[in-house]
Amino acid sequence: MSNKSGGGNFFEDFHLDQEIIHATPRTITLGDQALYNAIYGSRFPFISSDEFARAAGLERSPIDSLLTFHVVFGKSVPNISLNAIANLGYADCLFKAPTYPGDTVNATSRVIGVKQNSNGKTGTVYVRTTGRNQHGEVLVEFIRWVMVAKRDPASPAPEPSVPELPAKVALERIVLPGELDLAGYDLAAAGSPYLWEDYTAGERIDHIDGTTVEAAEHMMATRMYQNTARVHFDAHAAQASHFGRRVVYGGHVISIARSLSFNGLANALRIIAINGGRHVAPLFAGDTVYAWSEVLETMPLPGRDDIGALRLRTVATKDHACADYPYKNADGADHPAVVLDLDYTALMPRRPTGEDRK
Amino acid sequence: MSNKSGGGNFFEDFHLDQEIIHATPRTITLGDQALYNAIYGSRFPFISSDEFARAAGLERSPIDSLLTFHVVFGKSVPNISLNAIANLGYADCLFKAPTYPGDTVNATSRVIGVKQNSNGKTGTVYVRTTGRNQHGEVLVEFIRWVMVAKRDPASPAPEPSVPELPAKVALERIVLPGELDLAGYDLAAAGSPYLWEDYTAGERIDHIDGTTVEAAEHMMATRMYQNTARVHFDAHAAQASHFGRRVVYGGHVISIARSLSFNGLANALRIIAINGGRHVAPLFAGDTVYAWSEVLETMPLPGRDDIGALRLRTVATKDHACADYPYKNADGADHPAVVLDLDYTALMPRRPTGEDRK
Amino acid sequence: MSNKSGGGNFFEDFHLDQEIIHATPRTITLGDQALYNAIYGSRFPFISSDEFARAAGLERSPIDSLLTFHVVFGKSVPNISLNAIANLGYADCLFKAPTYPGDTVNATSRVIGVKQNSNGKTGTVYVRTTGRNQHGEVLVEFIRWVMVAKRDPASPAPEPSVPELPAKVALERIVLPGELDLAGYDLAAAGSPYLWEDYTAGERIDHIDGTTVEAAEHMMATRMYQNTARVHFDAHAAQASHFGRRVVYGGHVISIARSLSFNGLANALRIIAINGGRHVAPLFAGDTVYAWSEVLETMPLPGRDDIGALRLRTVATKDHACADYPYKNADGADHPAVVLDLDYTALMPRRPTGEDRK
Repeated sequence: MSNKSGGGNFFEDFHLDQEIIHATPRTITLGDQALYNAIYGSRFPFISSDEFARAAGLERSPIDSLLTFHVVFGKSVPNISLNAIANLGYADCLFKAPTYPGDTVNATSRVIGVKQNSNGKTGTVYVRTTGRNQHGEVLVEFIRWVMVAKRDPASPAPEPSVPELPAKVALERIVLPGELDLAGYDLAAAGSPYLWEDYTAGERIDHIDGTTVEAAEHMMATRMYQNTARVHFDAHAAQASHFGRRVVYGGHVISIARSLSFNGLANALRIIAINGGRHVAPLFAGDTVYAWSEVLETMPLPGRDDIGALRLRTVATKDHACADYPYKNADGADHPAVVLDLDYTALMPRRPTGEDRK
Repeated sequence: MSNKSGGGNFFEDFHLDQEIIHATPRTITLGDQALYNAIYGSRFPFISSDEFARAAGLERSPIDSLLTFHVVFGKSVPNISLNAIANLGYADCLFKAPTYPGDTVNATSRVIGVKQNSNGKTGTVYVRTTGRNQHGEVLVEFIRWVMVAKRDPASPAPEPSVPELPAKVALERIVLPGELDLAGYDLAAAGSPYLWEDYTAGERIDHIDGTTVEAAEHMMATRMYQNTARVHFDAHAAQASHFGRRVVYGGHVISIARSLSFNGLANALRIIAINGGRHVAPLFAGDTVYAWSEVLETMPLPGRDDIGALRLRTVATKDHACADYPYKNADGADHPAVVLDLDYTALMPRRPTGEDRK
Repeated sequence: MSNKSGGGNFFEDFHLDQEIIHATPRTITLGDQALYNAIYGSRFPFISSDEFARAAGLERSPIDSLLTFHVVFGKSVPNISLNAIANLGYADCLFKAPTYPGDTVNATSRVIGVKQNSNGKTGTVYVRTTGRNQHGEVLVEFIRWVMVAKRDPASPAPEPSVPELPAKVALERIVLPGELDLAGYDLAAAGSPYLWEDYTAGERIDHIDGTTVEAAEHMMATRMYQNTARVHFDAHAAQASHFGRRVVYGGHVISIARSLSFNGLANALRIIAINGGRHVAPLFAGDTVYAWSEVLETMPLPGRDDIGALRLRTVATKDHACADYPYKNADGADHPAVVLDLDYTALMPRRPTGEDRK
């Protein structure tokens, strides 16, 4: 017998300011991006076309921000959340340098909070996770917090420490990818005439299309991210679980919703921050995902007249088309069809002054 | 509320000689070709081996002609056929410059015919769609025609205009890819001793193998092509449709049939023209596709003794093996198992004069 | 009618010392490796990270040994086993030069034994199959033997010839990939502190995780390998077969088991030999695969203090977690859950003398 198989960490294994190196570094390639595109159907122009990306000052088509996010998240699973009872939330997610095909992603986490629950059997762990490329540049960083079981309920509680969680990523922390210059942005090629000026806070957009999730797709995506959480892969063990079947990785829903959002937000080029998100209900293979978005804020970017930011809420549902913008019921409870409530910030080109690019 | 989500064009939105730029340019990569190969199992030598392609004068393995076709077709869907009641046909499809991994495909269409139907509610739109690479070279062009709903039945009918549709792509329009030279064609490596001289008009070939279509596969392929037609993806909405389930993209059947045809047509290196095609019946996940081919014509190519062309009809069926060459019944109606009737032209090496390459 | 579709070889078609060139050469790309990773979830560091591979003296991340194996095996199917009644076994599989993305694999086989069975209707054919890259370097070679039907039971039996089958690949034949140097091996990045010295013969390791097999996944993988055996693809024909459904390619199980084994054997960097294997029972879509391993031997490598070899038996099961190490029952019969019994040799870094890399 052997105990060399990793069993993941328990609440006692975490302490404030602990630094964790996540295995294994991961080179993200053209092949990964191709598979990502085929699984989600993204059509945003930077991801779709090297020529489009180059015309905007990038080296070539970058890897989708969310693919980078999922890989970094996946790397953290064996250390952070293998014994998680619940993924409670994430916040302050900021995308910095673009990831390009061939870049190797390294992920680390720092424990920024620990708090035992009053039942004495579980606790909440807060980490800031950072993904860097092979040059040490930060690609993405985010806070997440999970409820983790204690190995031994009799072990002493640590000094409680809860970090401040920003409601949104501050505008001044936003980092534009590379030498971004949208002066020559080609609206006809991009596929939508709507620019930053055309969106207003409070506006709601039905993304119309729906896509049915297949087990092969969500498992291939989740393995691509090297996310090892067992609930996504093992239908045999899942028979004895609460849901009786495999649960789709929450990040899969985010990527589906983002791809659906092209229809109405085609020029929302790149997600640069995720302010927060809730996985309201689990998703299973066979469910059909729809999405709609609300513009939360329109934010000019300091010193830039070619590009602005939109803070968006994208809501994804299952088996319920979004023409009625389902979100919360009158009593404030979540609409029963809602699976995802995501608050994020995306870049969008602005209309050139003195001319109508339309 | 917002109407920024694209709803597609209606019959009134098309007029003769209209030029349409399709969003979004799409870089086709090694990763896309790898996924294409895994979904269809193509074994044709140019696609399979860089070395084989180089020995024939190409830069490297080109992207499969049909993958290029599907991407260009997919790009045209949001503008041309999102509100199509029926995809009526296509013709005069010609493949010109080869697409190589890393090339970016731009698609445009010109309206070459409009004709309102006698019911006053729908009309037929004819377009010539062209896919070009980043250098402006034509990769593929084809005519297709679709029946599209009118937005307002009371709107006036346009002057009817119906283009001439060639029964086949004229031989003199055929373009050989690159600096093609098959003098050194390696028959042992290619896997079949049968060359252009070995095929005769009227010959029928059972491709024997069958492949069962999975939902994950046809959806991943169709998303890879960035084809957004909802019927392929949304099982929830499809419950209320005529078929009660998702319909497989017709081009998926073409690619399956082409891959199956390796078994009997192994040296049919590259499709250079599609003369016409009919999607006789819809295909669904779970169906098993078989195929057989008939040689319609054997065509020498002017000035070339190393290569000839075969005009082929490939018929695909579902849940019916093709040893009996199912096609039409005695009354001229389609055999009930037939799903595809494709008329196309492929290149095949010729036997060197004065020696037997076998 | 035509008989140009390959029907595969029968027992009479094989003779001792026959050399067979398998069609079609196959360039293995970054895209193939990405798809392989998504299907199996491999996390071994050489495959995962270009940087990790370079730090160990390799050019970049090599193609997974097993992906190369499956492609070479797949290439041999149309000539060797299309009419096989049973794949009886394989042995003496040795991986030599690493395969890198972009390499083109050519496969050949030599018949090293033929023996008609006493029933006069079938015979066993033994071949040594070799995969080489475009430079002629051997990537992998192996012996396999299959039971093949005779075309005509009345045809005379050949002189029986049965090769010697080594119980394991001799240590002196082991070839290290490239300029391998593990002096700087980064244990934190690799994800496990356990090195060659930490494993002992007889030790058993439960790999814990399970993964449920989907039809789309095993078919895409098997088509990626260009393996054309019909039983894997045709659900319609399979209805009339013994099992009533498609059978998963045996190599798919090997790759699943290998990927699961990361959990407990994370530093087993590269498979360098397969000593033998038995596919104990068939696997079907919907089955969940688990695995455990036993260390059979710990083998130092002559002249190397940075790296050693482990001979391992990895056992895969279906729908049965492996905490009880299922293998054989008291009567010596296989445990009913076992699907694979694989005996192979992998490289693992050694602990540097005079310091504790942990």
